[in-house]
Amino acid sequence: MPVHTALGRVLAADVTSPADLPPFDRSAVDGWAVRAADVASAESDHPVRLRHAGEVRMGEAAALTVSPGDAVRIPTGGVLPDGADAIVMQEHVEAHLPVILVRRAVPSGDNVVRRGIDLRAGEVVFRRGRRLRPADLGMLAGLGLAEVEVTLPPRVAILATGDEVVEPGRPLAPGRVRDMNSPALAGAVQAAGGVAVLCGIVPDERGAVEEALRRAVASHEMVLVSGGSSVGDRDVASDAIAALGPPGIIVHGIAVRPGKPTVLAASGEVPVIGLPGNPVSALVIFDLFARPVLEGLLGVDPASRPWDLVRARLVAALPAAGAREDHRRVRLEARPDGLWAAPLPAGSQVLTSLVHADGIVVVPASSAGYAEGEEVEVRLL
Amino acid sequence: MPVHTALGRVLAADVTSPADLPPFDRSAVDGWAVRAADVASAESDHPVRLRHAGEVRMGEAAALTVSPGDAVRIPTGGVLPDGADAIVMQEHVEAHLPVILVRRAVPSGDNVVRRGIDLRAGEVVFRRGRRLRPADLGMLAGLGLAEVEVTLPPRVAILATGDEVVEPGRPLAPGRVRDMNSPALAGAVQAAGGVAVLCGIVPDERGAVEEALRRAVASHEMVLVSGGSSVGDRDVASDAIAALGPPGIIVHGIAVRPGKPTVLAASGEVPVIGLPGNPVSALVIFDLFARPVLEGLLGVDPASRPWDLVRARLVAALPAAGAREDHRRVRLEARPDGLWAAPLPAGSQVLTSLVHADGIVVVPASSAGYAEGEEVEVRLL
Repeated sequence: MPVHTALGRVLAADVTSPADLPPFDRSAVDGWAVRAADVASAESDHPVRLRHAGEVRMGEAAALTVSPGDAVRIPTGGVLPDGADAIVMQEHVEAHLPVILVRRAVPSGDNVVRRGIDLRAGEVVFRRGRRLRPADLGMLAGLGLAEVEVTLPPRVAILATGDEVVEPGRPLAPGRVRDMNSPALAGAVQAAGGVAVLCGIVPDERGAVEEALRRAVASHEMVLVSGGSSVGDRDVASDAIAALGPPGIIVHGIAVRPGKPTVLAASGEVPVIGLPGNPVSALVIFDLFARPVLEGLLGVDPASRPWDLVRARLVAALPAAGAREDHRRVRLEARPDGLWAAPLPAGSQVLTSLVHADGIVVVPASSAGYAEGEEVEVRLL
Repeated sequence: MPVHTALGRVLAADVTSPADLPPFDRSAVDGWAVRAADVASAESDHPVRLRHAGEVRMGEAAALTVSPGDAVRIPTGGVLPDGADAIVMQEHVEAHLPVILVRRAVPSGDNVVRRGIDLRAGEVVFRRGRRLRPADLGMLAGLGLAEVEVTLPPRVAILATGDEVVEPGRPLAPGRVRDMNSPALAGAVQAAGGVAVLCGIVPDERGAVEEALRRAVASHEMVLVSGGSSVGDRDVASDAIAALGPPGIIVHGIAVRPGKPTVLAASGEVPVIGLPGNPVSALVIFDLFARPVLEGLLGVDPASRPWDLVRARLVAALPAAGAREDHRRVRLEARPDGLWAAPLPAGSQVLTSLVHADGIVVVPASSAGYAEGEEVEVRLL
């Protein structure tokens, strides 16, 4: 795709520099190109006299040659003319054309940006799997590339199940709830670089869910289905996932709170992830399991991003989690003495904890928990 | 716009909850709805006998009433039936229908999520100016909103000036350089939430630049022009900006390195920012000055995001900056003893420093600089 539209896309192949960067020796300043030996004795009180021998024009090859005793006017970025090996900044020169007085000595190479100093032809600039940032687009253009080869974003089907779940815009009968997971997961998929395809709400019937999942698997690179996977009376989603064929369910139930009823499965080569119906749990589990899978499909280099983790002190204790790893939402506060993390309500029923959270603190299973004031690691949302 | 497509958009108005959330008292677990007083004496060895009095179905109003001695089956999320004030989890119940044995006492309110506990009708959920995250989309949908009022992204014109600057895909004659700023700034504008409009490369002539700027100002909400603003022979961009009319140039030249020749101006209500031609400088200055302006036009709440700043120790000293504030690019490394920041080459001529940087460390003007191993604040890119 065109380089200037490729923000956030992932490189499908290594990018090597087709040429040296910069492609020629050039001036780092506005000044005069000279032979360093000519001005070795220059001082502010004892200037060296040189002959004005022309001007390097911006964007043009230097047709001039700097002979002993010559000085050539040169702008920032101008091509260093033959014979010259240094630039005197214009503030150290007094021009009385055709004579110029140089009042400061420069060592050879001074104020010159050497050809290839930044990149050599053939050098790898970017590895495949890099997610392109604004500066990267500039660099790709600097290499002379108008287009760049990126991976195709995976299409991710998003299904909600549940007899009680109601589509947006429709009236809410007593006992019913809104479908929060579909839009939240659509946003999470998009933020991770995928294309979210909303497949609507499926009633809690094994046949209907299985049929919807089969259709989703057939035409998407990944499938997310939320709700219906709790181990209870209404376990239709996990039964339907199990019926999709090999390799089928790999994990059903994880020692994480919230998110216990998570299902990790695949049908052929299509990953199928069963997320809890509760929106808080669904987003926590998306981040833990679905995002890495999506990034894998997208070809993202899994190199860690250490700055997604910050350290903060706890405003209040986070008690022991019991037998499950507890993923607690926290709000961050910058105080004069550093960053603090305020735990939000633990229950996955408190939906507003989703929108107030800046990050997650993991309380390990069977641990003593964390004390008030203790420094912990916060994974940023 | 539709809620599920509103990721990253900025709210144009406060959002209040149209109803209580949750809209009814509901069960937090799979279990049995009871009157807490009936099971006050229950112990694992001495169960209390209750009558099975029906079942709450998911997504339906509870037509049942729980009378003394009754227990009603209820799923997670089910509506609490009249008369009941607590839920016993199913693992503490033995069913021998129509008799059930309860082996654990529950206090009144146990496992019940109260109507309005999360949000009360009329309560402000989001303030205008909030940039929507995935969880926010879920919350908006949970409030019953199918659409949401967001601000229109500002259209930002991007012009490059310079006789030496060549468009992508065209051959590079000797002495010429590629236009790196247009794609880099397009990415930066897009990342900040604006719509980037590339207006091409304008030759270094006062009339041509002024004409291009006038057209850009007439049909965009913001204008960025890079190159040509250094104080020297070729100062056409700043002259052209000055000619655009009041209020005109507000700042020309700043005590920041890189980025000294920056121009901050406005023509009528349209901000016009003159950025350095050097791509490293242009992106540093975009972040410092253009992004806040763009976010202001977009209506983003300027509340600080403290987690954009991390603390890291310096792998090498950052020496004194002199009279200008020095914005040094650093690469972050996660080591067992914490986060470290490795300074990248200082010169704005080293273009690869752009793509290797994870953040910026500011060395204050006229300071002593920072020592190796010293802890500094890093602004993440």
